[in-house]
Amino acid sequence: MKHCVFLLAQGHLPSALSSEIVRIGAEPRALEEGGAIIAYSATVDEAALALLRGTPSVARVLEGPTPHPLAARRSLGTRAVDVSIGPELVRLGGEQPVVIAGPCAVESEAQLEACARAIAALGGRFLRGGAYKPRTSPYAFAGEGERALELLRVVADRHRLAVVTEVLDPRDAERVARFADVLQIGARTMSDFALLRAVAAVGKPVLLKRAPSATLEEWLLSAEHLLHAGARDVVLCERGVRGFDPAARNLLDLAAVPLLRQRTDLPIFVDPSHGTGVRKAVLPMAAAAVAAGADGVLVECHPDAGVARSDGPQALPLAALPRLFGLVQGISALVRPSLDAAAE
Amino acid sequence: MKHCVFLLAQGHLPSALSSEIVRIGAEPRALEEGGAIIAYSATVDEAALALLRGTPSVARVLEGPTPHPLAARRSLGTRAVDVSIGPELVRLGGEQPVVIAGPCAVESEAQLEACARAIAALGGRFLRGGAYKPRTSPYAFAGEGERALELLRVVADRHRLAVVTEVLDPRDAERVARFADVLQIGARTMSDFALLRAVAAVGKPVLLKRAPSATLEEWLLSAEHLLHAGARDVVLCERGVRGFDPAARNLLDLAAVPLLRQRTDLPIFVDPSHGTGVRKAVLPMAAAAVAAGADGVLVECHPDAGVARSDGPQALPLAALPRLFGLVQGISALVRPSLDAAAE
Amino acid sequence: MKHCVFLLAQGHLPSALSSEIVRIGAEPRALEEGGAIIAYSATVDEAALALLRGTPSVARVLEGPTPHPLAARRSLGTRAVDVSIGPELVRLGGEQPVVIAGPCAVESEAQLEACARAIAALGGRFLRGGAYKPRTSPYAFAGEGERALELLRVVADRHRLAVVTEVLDPRDAERVARFADVLQIGARTMSDFALLRAVAAVGKPVLLKRAPSATLEEWLLSAEHLLHAGARDVVLCERGVRGFDPAARNLLDLAAVPLLRQRTDLPIFVDPSHGTGVRKAVLPMAAAAVAAGADGVLVECHPDAGVARSDGPQALPLAALPRLFGLVQGISALVRPSLDAAAE
Amino acid sequence: MKHCVFLLAQGHLPSALSSEIVRIGAEPRALEEGGAIIAYSATVDEAALALLRGTPSVARVLEGPTPHPLAARRSLGTRAVDVSIGPELVRLGGEQPVVIAGPCAVESEAQLEACARAIAALGGRFLRGGAYKPRTSPYAFAGEGERALELLRVVADRHRLAVVTEVLDPRDAERVARFADVLQIGARTMSDFALLRAVAAVGKPVLLKRAPSATLEEWLLSAEHLLHAGARDVVLCERGVRGFDPAARNLLDLAAVPLLRQRTDLPIFVDPSHGTGVRKAVLPMAAAAVAAGADGVLVECHPDAGVARSDGPQALPLAALPRLFGLVQGISALVRPSLDAAAE
Repeated sequence: MKHCVFLLAQGHLPSALSSEIVRIGAEPRALEEGGAIIAYSATVDEAALALLRGTPSVARVLEGPTPHPLAARRSLGTRAVDVSIGPELVRLGGEQPVVIAGPCAVESEAQLEACARAIAALGGRFLRGGAYKPRTSPYAFAGEGERALELLRVVADRHRLAVVTEVLDPRDAERVARFADVLQIGARTMSDFALLRAVAAVGKPVLLKRAPSATLEEWLLSAEHLLHAGARDVVLCERGVRGFDPAARNLLDLAAVPLLRQRTDLPIFVDPSHGTGVRKAVLPMAAAAVAAGADGVLVECHPDAGVARSDGPQALPLAALPRLFGLVQGISALVRPSLDAAAE
Repeated sequence: MKHCVFLLAQGHLPSALSSEIVRIGAEPRALEEGGAIIAYSATVDEAALALLRGTPSVARVLEGPTPHPLAARRSLGTRAVDVSIGPELVRLGGEQPVVIAGPCAVESEAQLEACARAIAALGGRFLRGGAYKPRTSPYAFAGEGERALELLRVVADRHRLAVVTEVLDPRDAERVARFADVLQIGARTMSDFALLRAVAAVGKPVLLKRAPSATLEEWLLSAEHLLHAGARDVVLCERGVRGFDPAARNLLDLAAVPLLRQRTDLPIFVDPSHGTGVRKAVLPMAAAAVAAGADGVLVECHPDAGVARSDGPQALPLAALPRLFGLVQGISALVRPSLDAAAE
Repeated sequence: MKHCVFLLAQGHLPSALSSEIVRIGAEPRALEEGGAIIAYSATVDEAALALLRGTPSVARVLEGPTPHPLAARRSLGTRAVDVSIGPELVRLGGEQPVVIAGPCAVESEAQLEACARAIAALGGRFLRGGAYKPRTSPYAFAGEGERALELLRVVADRHRLAVVTEVLDPRDAERVARFADVLQIGARTMSDFALLRAVAAVGKPVLLKRAPSATLEEWLLSAEHLLHAGARDVVLCERGVRGFDPAARNLLDLAAVPLLRQRTDLPIFVDPSHGTGVRKAVLPMAAAAVAAGADGVLVECHPDAGVARSDGPQALPLAALPRLFGLVQGISALVRPSLDAAAE
Repeated sequence: MKHCVFLLAQGHLPSALSSEIVRIGAEPRALEEGGAIIAYSATVDEAALALLRGTPSVARVLEGPTPHPLAARRSLGTRAVDVSIGPELVRLGGEQPVVIAGPCAVESEAQLEACARAIAALGGRFLRGGAYKPRTSPYAFAGEGERALELLRVVADRHRLAVVTEVLDPRDAERVARFADVLQIGARTMSDFALLRAVAAVGKPVLLKRAPSATLEEWLLSAEHLLHAGARDVVLCERGVRGFDPAARNLLDLAAVPLLRQRTDLPIFVDPSHGTGVRKAVLPMAAAAVAAGADGVLVECHPDAGVARSDGPQALPLAALPRLFGLVQGISALVRPSLDAAAE
């Protein structure tokens, strides 16, 4: 019986093994182990497989012809990502579904405080907020930058929340990591590989949004870029692809959730705010995301959506958060047993 | 205060009213009332509005600048469609969510009987099955035709189920209507207006699938074609739009459900089988559809999916039906109160 | 050496041949030869291939694993379609590029006469015009019907032009064929197989537009449906797929032209009017279509576009026709030698 | 009469003017003039317009409600971009159409020399080649980096060609600018605003590719980001959007050319290599691009496409370059007068 395998090895493999082995990638690359790592793909018989597994320079052997071995299903028993909040650990992708909420853009301490208090009161542990905002127009509000990072940290600490915020520039990665617990890569920059490498290098969990024209495989390959460049953990976040119907800002691809589940163990989140751009659709689509098997949702809220400086039409009022948290938890409790059974 | 209205009138309006009234459509058309009906759009003041409402030849006055007044929100207290099964009435779009299930194509009485028995045992009341199948290739199996219609009727009657089946040719509409309770318009023919008129004319409820490139407005305008041509009731069914990712057969647009809810009172169904084309995604997406607010799902099942003559890879085995029915009912019970509150 | 072949045979093949032969399609179908034809696909060696070619009941053997053997490249030396205008023959897909022009909808004899005179004065031989118009809204002008057919015939005869017009309803196919020389299948009905069969049955050339969500293969399979149902000749017409940018009505896929050339010998036309929906883009895209290798263009014109009852914003004024005809001929003369050389 | 204007002013405007003036963007920004520039939009009467034009602190007044005033039509008599090759100036967007050719990735001096010699022999003045390659997989060849930049410069100088190459990382912008004459922003990074700002800052012409999901307006806003951040000149390059048909790698949107012409004076190029991904389609689509009004094409070629380390299936063999140059020049000569007349 033949096995299709994918290898990461330190340096070149012994030539005895090389007949059916194809080298992937042009240059040796450094992996977290320190040495120069080369990726190989091979079709091998039982004997060669055993030999590979026993070769000291072979760091990993992954079966199956996956183009993204690090991001693939890992069968490690858990796919959870632990995030530190001081001495505590909170989980993304664990037993409990997670709501990550907060304003599109950090505008003021009062705005952020109102959001954080509402989130914490509902048992939420994650606060999102934009400090550096990618804006289609150079004349649009682009975020408060470092001042917003400081506010996020202060307010989150006050309520024992973890901070999720976006990095736009590779030169900002370390600075953002000093304030944030989870670094977000936005949809526009999913394939900005220089940015991915810089963010991976700081070693914190990364929330990777899907680009509006990315296939699932391209998205997983961006996750692979992150993991290959040293990212500790990656969380995927669907936020809608480019659709043709002006009725919605984007076309939220919820089937991505079960389809990804067949391909990866990484936690999968859904952003129904950007995914629809329509406030009335946010709650139904958050509920649908969890019903489809998502590990949680990323939602924009605002204490006064009418005056939001960015993406007001899709922000939930804080009064809607209890219903959001309730739906997410209720549906998760209902579907988890069924979906886990179905995935077997 | 000015009102934007849409009128359906028998013949021309009195000229006293005509100054701000724009006639829509070129030719008078017969509506169910029998007379020649002309559609008008107008911006009128309070006095003119009262006058219009009192004009005997004005059949309907609908406020708001909708291009599809008959398919729009009707605020009639209910959006339910009643389907007769002998002396019984069963409902689409009522309080209870509905599962419509059955094989893609009717192949044999044994196959159909196995499906119907499984559906009835779970409390289902609707059996779907293809008698006339639109197939991309002229060399593919195109359905058993009238023999399949007869089998559908016999088997459905045995289990007191309503029959849902597709009409492909305007010349078949009456024949299909003799056997079926709900006539389906498929995605490929959503804009085949000659077919829509012929199906509308037989006066049974119509299940109208969305074409893979149709906007919500275009879809609602096809529903308007049906209602304008005399269809008694129309049920909408989302089944995925054309996507760019080969990971799925179609891109299921679940946000269509809450976005349609803002525009229409017609019942909204979702077909996760065609909507994904991947068996493992059917259950999660059926659950998600109901969580998003759908009135029910349309699902393909097969007693032996491995030998299905059409669309085998997306058919659910009958053993999965209990989980499907359970998820649909459980989630519906959970989300209805929240979604109804949110829609207010 | 093995050969991948596709067969059309009268009845079942001798069992001696059957080992590697897979039957395609469920039911024998009548082909133009009269007998019941069954399609087969097979992988055969040299000896079996010779045997098949010598079997009298095998109507055709096409090499290569094409799903659309009748629509595929036929290597018959020409791909031209001859259309009769009285005793004359005019060609689509021959040496000379062709402009098919006329109004979106036939409105009056004066309108049609102005168009026809302008076309004939430039050497054009094809007049298009809508008698039955598929309209998204039931309230929009849907064409003048049979009166328009009569006008088309009268005006075309006066200028010795061939008539191209759309059929919407299978029950209209024969009537339209009495007046028209080329029957058009519109984008909305490309997959309306009942209509395709009815139009094929009348035996006139068919101009088949691409549906807005159709792949090239699906489009060619609709051509296969036509040819399989007896259509004499099929001309393909690209008219834009559904795009995401509101800047244009559709996204004109000109690369379809060279990509189709690799797959089929059917003549290929392009409709830059529907393909863009923007008058200023029609001439550049007509020029581009011919530069890409199209056999001609299908263009909407109107003597007074400002008052057109349908699609006014994309209609060319008649004053632009000389530039259109000049560009089409000039570019065709320039690119044909290069493209023919490139295709070798 | 009222005028809709867009202003760029140094600092705040006199309050006398402010009544109808809306400030756009949150923060004053430095423009090339040095001062802090604020963008305003206003609806003003004749008198106020005159006042604005006479206000010393108002750097620019652009009429019309465009969201991208710097990238809009400028009516400056020319849209040409001059590129220095030593003491010479060569033009993009001038009277003569331009072919920019070269390998996808720089692999060796021999490969580059073969390309450059072929280009120069045909009168070409632009050599493209990838030094830093964005690759979907982290295991794919990602370019030779600085060594490739050096080779590009040496080989281009030998043949008096200008170098066009991509910048991927904001930290590389200055280094690349030391070797290259035109800096390319790739499709994946069109909305990577940190990169745009860094590339703009080096002050060389920028070739900006369209992202696969970008509308024309989003693309022009990325050009606006570049111009707003100090880029001297921007050249647009269409390279295909994400399509649904696996027959092509991308869906080349040639109608973008005439549609952009209505919105901007920036030179417009087309890349038929990435735009189709199919070698046989490159020449027809290059011809079509120029017929549609493009200022030139960007094409991948390779002396031995079979062994190319990147994008081999779409590379033209050098033997096809004479036909490419001939088609581009022949069609340009034919269409320019017609298109210029049509644009009036």
